[in-house]
Amino acid sequence: MQRLYLEDLVVGQRLASQGTYTVTEEEIRAFAQKFDPQPFHSDPVSARGTFFGGLIASGWHTAAMTMRLLATDALPLAEGIIGLGGEISWPNPTRPGDVLRVVCELVEITPSRSRPDRGVARFLCSTLNQRDETVQRLVANLVVFGRSYR
Amino acid sequence: MQRLYLEDLVVGQRLASQGTYTVTEEEIRAFAQKFDPQPFHSDPVSARGTFFGGLIASGWHTAAMTMRLLATDALPLAEGIIGLGGEISWPNPTRPGDVLRVVCELVEITPSRSRPDRGVARFLCSTLNQRDETVQRLVANLVVFGRSYR
Repeated sequence: MQRLYLEDLVVGQRLASQGTYTVTEEEIRAFAQKFDPQPFHSDPVSARGTFFGGLIASGWHTAAMTMRLLATDALPLAEGIIGLGGEISWPNPTRPGDVLRVVCELVEITPSRSRPDRGVARFLCSTLNQRDETVQRLVANLVVFGRSYR
Repeated sequence: MQRLYLEDLVVGQRLASQGTYTVTEEEIRAFAQKFDPQPFHSDPVSARGTFFGGLIASGWHTAAMTMRLLATDALPLAEGIIGLGGEISWPNPTRPGDVLRVVCELVEITPSRSRPDRGVARFLCSTLNQRDETVQRLVANLVVFGRSYR
């Protein structure tokens, strides 16, 4: 996998995962038990009587699974994926059995004013399920480095 | 713990966790191995030679630990914490041994135009470490329900 430096990035560029992430009920419940213990994430029976009508993954679990796809597959940035922050939303829930992939578009590059060896790249990363529904929309501001950094 | 409905919420209201979350190296590495396998999250030795100069938690791990504090402690919303999305940033890294707590302020309430039994509450939730440094700033848009919902 070719590692990408600041010099390799162009606004409009698209990067997508080649692989996918299959969501299991077991993993949804384990994540929820540890980090987000609410009935619609942790208990399939109670989940039926909630707003969502069934078990769904915590939004932060969807974010974590997306990160797995970005870090190992979709975004091979030379110094790693270093996130300053961004905007996140979950237009549709992630449910057991979903098969996720991620598609990113580079929307903006801001070179550092003080350090010519780096900049901030703004990526729109959409996490899609097997029906091409968007389960997460993340606009991420990442620190990217040029070849002169090391 | 008193469960909060839309009618109980007022702009400017502050809600904070009573408890804390202690971050361990073991948990940082386990989360990283599963969801964010990058050297600065997964390997304390390699992490020394990276941008961060040592092991730090994945930003999504900080988000997940914050969610634990919100769901079990800081934000007792009557129908649960149902997030539409928001803005997130990590002004300082989370490191092994950190003790986290969360402080939220309600910044805006938008009643639903079509459904009088619900609205969207916008909370600014700051995750602080034991030195009162902000490790995460989250502005979260949450669906909140009135007493007439059920």
